[in-house]
Amino acid sequence: MSLKSWAYLNRVVEGPSRPLQLLLGAGRDAEEIAHGVRTRASWLGELEPQTAARHGWDRAEQDLAEAAAVGARLITPESGEWPREELDLAFGFAATGRSEHVRSYQADAVPPHALWVRGAPLNQAVAQSVAVVGTRAATRYGHEATRQIATGLATHQWTIVSGGALGVDTVAHEAALAAGGLTLAVAACGIDRTYPARNAALLDRVAGQGCVVSEYPPGTSPQRHRFLTRNRLVAALTAGTVIVEAAWRSGALNTLSWAEGLGRVTMAVPGPITSAGSLGCHERIKDGRAQLVTGADDVRALLGAVGALDIAEQYELAFAATPVQSLTRNELRVFDACAPGGSTAQDISGTAGLPVPLTVHLLMDLARRGIVHRDGTAWSRMAAPQG
Amino acid sequence: MSLKSWAYLNRVVEGPSRPLQLLLGAGRDAEEIAHGVRTRASWLGELEPQTAARHGWDRAEQDLAEAAAVGARLITPESGEWPREELDLAFGFAATGRSEHVRSYQADAVPPHALWVRGAPLNQAVAQSVAVVGTRAATRYGHEATRQIATGLATHQWTIVSGGALGVDTVAHEAALAAGGLTLAVAACGIDRTYPARNAALLDRVAGQGCVVSEYPPGTSPQRHRFLTRNRLVAALTAGTVIVEAAWRSGALNTLSWAEGLGRVTMAVPGPITSAGSLGCHERIKDGRAQLVTGADDVRALLGAVGALDIAEQYELAFAATPVQSLTRNELRVFDACAPGGSTAQDISGTAGLPVPLTVHLLMDLARRGIVHRDGTAWSRMAAPQG
Repeated sequence: MSLKSWAYLNRVVEGPSRPLQLLLGAGRDAEEIAHGVRTRASWLGELEPQTAARHGWDRAEQDLAEAAAVGARLITPESGEWPREELDLAFGFAATGRSEHVRSYQADAVPPHALWVRGAPLNQAVAQSVAVVGTRAATRYGHEATRQIATGLATHQWTIVSGGALGVDTVAHEAALAAGGLTLAVAACGIDRTYPARNAALLDRVAGQGCVVSEYPPGTSPQRHRFLTRNRLVAALTAGTVIVEAAWRSGALNTLSWAEGLGRVTMAVPGPITSAGSLGCHERIKDGRAQLVTGADDVRALLGAVGALDIAEQYELAFAATPVQSLTRNELRVFDACAPGGSTAQDISGTAGLPVPLTVHLLMDLARRGIVHRDGTAWSRMAAPQG
Repeated sequence: MSLKSWAYLNRVVEGPSRPLQLLLGAGRDAEEIAHGVRTRASWLGELEPQTAARHGWDRAEQDLAEAAAVGARLITPESGEWPREELDLAFGFAATGRSEHVRSYQADAVPPHALWVRGAPLNQAVAQSVAVVGTRAATRYGHEATRQIATGLATHQWTIVSGGALGVDTVAHEAALAAGGLTLAVAACGIDRTYPARNAALLDRVAGQGCVVSEYPPGTSPQRHRFLTRNRLVAALTAGTVIVEAAWRSGALNTLSWAEGLGRVTMAVPGPITSAGSLGCHERIKDGRAQLVTGADDVRALLGAVGALDIAEQYELAFAATPVQSLTRNELRVFDACAPGGSTAQDISGTAGLPVPLTVHLLMDLARRGIVHRDGTAWSRMAAPQG
């Protein structure tokens, strides 16, 4: 049975695993790979050393039973609730190699191969979702700002995804629950474990009104490297990440870097300059790596058109040599529709034959990349098409 | 005597006056113009209606005496302390017509024709100066943030220029005085008047440790339109403007728009999103019309190289048709020095033969205009030279 093969692989290969991803991508199925790992097949490639220590740990049935005991299930790319679209979009972008962060964490820039889930169907929970993360040591201001933004998003049917940690994460989950919205926690430990212990009741409520997700088999303890790979999932499953209060070197900045590296919208909430609490947020805004947002409306406006992007069109031209050559088909339609003297988004939308929100999204992205330029309501081209 | 002619003109023509500016630009001197106004000469052009009501008000001697009584003097383009460089740079930029704000306030986008000054020589006071402005209704946070930034700038020999108003302006002046630095207040009323009355002692201290400046003849009352034209002088005399706490439609945003329209560096301090106090600051950062700054170091870094800009080079190519054609000589040197694969600012500085701070300033400005692109420490071109 295939699910047991996935459970076996999940136990013997700590995700993310690029070698496993390569074998799956080459068309081998989970059962075949599991058999290969058990029998040390010659075609394992890099998966051979990666499974050398654990390939004898065949605890699939026990793991599935332990998960079931806490109301959790294992989902895989074969499951109906697998968040395929989100993962394809995120790791497809990562594969273009545009991001310095992804180049630094190349080994982690692959999708999970299976996920343990407690609560709602995962694909439904993340269909319209945004990550809200921040420091554990949140100030009173951080609490207020988080509550304000998470409440505004939850009441507009955005699922609030966070890490279940103390501080900003906790407030984000709680605000979503209080607003009657969906919320999702991505754990850095096994689905049957609770970390931090203080949040046991909160995580039960999250699972009841949304879901809790883990990439690791039951019993796995939270460890530093798992927080970092967990952050990539928070970014991958959501349309964008908002950081609220992140001091220098905060883990929330790591999540934001993943969002950037996975092609997601990156946002940061400003705060008082008289405290160090928002230092990381301000740095990312200054560096142009995050957009300043002051409320749920800003976040919604920035995320509005993301769902309309066509994945294939988004990446087919990703390796081109000049900025204009690298444009996707939709981006080119928008670029070509800018008249020499400048055009309104409305006009460009009409000429390009694309909906206004998508047009605006593409224009803003092209402007961010220096390819078009906005002056008031008029958009014009910065560079002539080349090649 | 020429000074009396300037005083006469200052009384009968409420500045700024584009018609007066045109006559001065056409080579007529103050005495000749004053005589022409008195005698209703045929060549007055638009200055004729502008002086129709007041040309009989010949109070030059009295105005000079009233100013002298409060320790003030009248300075003109003929004075050694006239801030020629700053005004040429600001209104030279305005004349390129790049800014929407300037197009909306075309009549005001001309330099003052004379200034009343109490205190230090004006050109020395503004030689290294920055405007720090904000709301009258400053919160405790606004006070703290202003004090922090103004103190940091004053201790690094930056003159703090502001409007002498209550709230942020007052704190900015006070912080500069406390730090033993220079500070300058631009008044919206006559140099012999005190507005607001509560700041009488403060303005005396500002005049003692820096200077107070007014474009209006003695006795002039502060009126709404004068605050707006005063704002243009605050922006024109300084290398850049920092807004600290500006709510929606705050007057400080008007000063920032002038700074933008006059080609100065525009900066905004973020604050809590849970109060409306920083709304205007956040809007300008979101719109890309101001750079987020969190302290004096950020401000100094952004202003660092401004003094090194060559005015002639800055504008000689301002009317070109494409972004690259519009580059000044120094900008082109920097642009051409960017190697195809990206270069560090250090390398570009060496190749271009320009100092590093100026190179960085130019690169940042080119990036803002979408002409070059930064990836980490590597700068590269966005568009190929055309035409």
